[in-house]
Amino acid sequence: MNLIVMKFGGTSVGSIDKIKNVADIVIKEAKLNKLIVVLSAMSGVTNEMQKYIDDVSSDEKIENDLILTSGESVTVGLLSAILKKRDIKSIPLLGWQIPIVTDNNYQKAKILNIDKERINEFLKNFDVIVLAGFQGINQEGHITSLGRGGSDTTAVAIASAVDAKRCDIYTDVDGVYTTDPNIVPEAKQIPKLAFEEMLEMSSTGAKVLHTRSVELAMKNNLVLQVISSISKKPGTLILDDKKLIEKEIVSGVSYSKNESKITISGIPDRPGISALLFGLLADQNINVDMIVQNISQDGITANITFTVPNDEVNLANNVLKTNINKLDFSSIKTDKKVSKISVIGMGMMSQSGVAKKMFKTLADNSINILAISTSEIKISVLIDEKYTNIAVKSLHEAYNLKVK
Amino acid sequence: MNLIVMKFGGTSVGSIDKIKNVADIVIKEAKLNKLIVVLSAMSGVTNEMQKYIDDVSSDEKIENDLILTSGESVTVGLLSAILKKRDIKSIPLLGWQIPIVTDNNYQKAKILNIDKERINEFLKNFDVIVLAGFQGINQEGHITSLGRGGSDTTAVAIASAVDAKRCDIYTDVDGVYTTDPNIVPEAKQIPKLAFEEMLEMSSTGAKVLHTRSVELAMKNNLVLQVISSISKKPGTLILDDKKLIEKEIVSGVSYSKNESKITISGIPDRPGISALLFGLLADQNINVDMIVQNISQDGITANITFTVPNDEVNLANNVLKTNINKLDFSSIKTDKKVSKISVIGMGMMSQSGVAKKMFKTLADNSINILAISTSEIKISVLIDEKYTNIAVKSLHEAYNLKVK
Repeated sequence: MNLIVMKFGGTSVGSIDKIKNVADIVIKEAKLNKLIVVLSAMSGVTNEMQKYIDDVSSDEKIENDLILTSGESVTVGLLSAILKKRDIKSIPLLGWQIPIVTDNNYQKAKILNIDKERINEFLKNFDVIVLAGFQGINQEGHITSLGRGGSDTTAVAIASAVDAKRCDIYTDVDGVYTTDPNIVPEAKQIPKLAFEEMLEMSSTGAKVLHTRSVELAMKNNLVLQVISSISKKPGTLILDDKKLIEKEIVSGVSYSKNESKITISGIPDRPGISALLFGLLADQNINVDMIVQNISQDGITANITFTVPNDEVNLANNVLKTNINKLDFSSIKTDKKVSKISVIGMGMMSQSGVAKKMFKTLADNSINILAISTSEIKISVLIDEKYTNIAVKSLHEAYNLKVK
Repeated sequence: MNLIVMKFGGTSVGSIDKIKNVADIVIKEAKLNKLIVVLSAMSGVTNEMQKYIDDVSSDEKIENDLILTSGESVTVGLLSAILKKRDIKSIPLLGWQIPIVTDNNYQKAKILNIDKERINEFLKNFDVIVLAGFQGINQEGHITSLGRGGSDTTAVAIASAVDAKRCDIYTDVDGVYTTDPNIVPEAKQIPKLAFEEMLEMSSTGAKVLHTRSVELAMKNNLVLQVISSISKKPGTLILDDKKLIEKEIVSGVSYSKNESKITISGIPDRPGISALLFGLLADQNINVDMIVQNISQDGITANITFTVPNDEVNLANNVLKTNINKLDFSSIKTDKKVSKISVIGMGMMSQSGVAKKMFKTLADNSINILAISTSEIKISVLIDEKYTNIAVKSLHEAYNLKVK
């Protein structure tokens, strides 16, 4: 018998009926394999808890994580009770009961250690462990949370710890698509994807998987499957690129509206100024993504444009304005109405012409490119937000990704 | 500095505003004493959890307690966060974090042990421990619940473990009254009461305190105070009767409609029949209270009448009918429309005439007595439920308990 980890998110366990549906899926799988089933809280519950925290303006780390992790007890208890009634040997466990040991970064804790021996002990006596996702315990004995989407990370971390054969991430979509089907109805489910591609897709806007969980799976070479808890069709397998026989030149097109552009004008064009500027932002944990430095026209000052996530733009703006004396720029401008469009594919490494086709397609649609960034398997461009849909549609068409 | 334990129930922490009110009370007390503050879940939350359990018809003990104890994390986290914002050195803790070790009787677990050293360690570093009531952990590492009203027991148990100077039970009434003010508006708050009196009141229908918590306080000679979280007036002190200077002959009148009467007719009038009958009920954990055996008129058969709690009457009925061959009775009759009225007072021990006055008062009001039971400090009678209010009113008047 193999060991499989299954993870169900908040929408999959959002009501008693939905939890019963999860039980059906688990029971079918339990006939073939030993299971660890990782659950989130019911959809909406974590938001409700966040509202309580906001209502008392709490920035207390220990307290906030204690409140945020209260919802998983309910889903874990309910699913395990349903499984037992249906004669499955099941045990419900919270993060601290394994324990899943994390660091002290409350609200976005990283898993340090999982007690493998204790899990194996449980698996001797039970066929299914129903485990609370999203939560752990730090070395001081306080409960920590892993951040939004953290249940994916719990699932992947525990699957890696116990050398599971596979980690199935159940969700409300059929898998990973070539792009957002809400924008392009002809978008196609991707049967197999390399870790690197999934990682680029997650970090460029596709919201299927928590980026950290993909990183962790890649590091441990753990096969992930993104699969629907409703349709029961085969999902998308995410695995080592060596296991991919045919590598797509472009596997998908993703987009993110969660970008803001900051342009600093009239900054002295001298060595070290970029290091100073981005050093100040890094000190505040601001994530700078795309950077464009314009060639100085007068040989004295330059313009620098870069992007940050929307929720960090105010902080970035303040940091820069506070340091105007050091940086000596003449003006600063921010723009939230931009969008980052990315094309991603493992085959890109060995194939030329991908970027050219991207730029030509956008030009044909009269879409201006504000910034560009690339990696070996990805090209991203920043454009005016209002052209998002037309850019995604035309690129999806240009790379011939739609259902044939 | 002394150590005081304060407990706030579900209605006292039922909203953010109410939790802020609790914070006000705690902060005032924290200026004088080190504190352990025990909280229930927000009112309604435990009921909501019970509904989930009922919806999946779960009778799984481990799972049900995991679900039922999820609500305290929220109140404990919120209060501790508010206290910290107001510069109180506070720490939120769940039952397993102390740990509060219980037996394996899920849903009504008994506390076996509380780690006093660890509490003292916390009190060295913090001025206020905010502790989840109602919950513990058993020796197998699973979360247990102490049963409805269990937060009172948590408060008293922890106060006893750390030799607290006092345990204040905050509630939505001003303390313990001579009777239910909903029936008798002239009912009077009692300033001081002996443990034994409170115990009799709790077990005869007054819902102010969880019976087990009073037993535990008596055993440990811990002064309890029942006090309002709204009015801020002094509450009712419950203490050793040696500390009561003046002992009331009758301290209060209580009533319970949670009684059912069972009458068995035509049962053989021979030695051992009662032992057999009540043995069968005891085997099913049915709580028999008042018992009346009528004198046999024919010298061969007798009638036996007794009371059980309403929610055990069907089970009792089934047990007896199943054993009709052994018990050999001719008929069985149950009646839920009865009420138990009790008068309670420490002074009763040294004073005669209390029972006489009770019986005369009821007779003057044409109320028939169906059964009687007494202890050293209590007389209870069973009457037709429809006379409950008139019985309580007239007895309250007869013993001169109303506000003068």
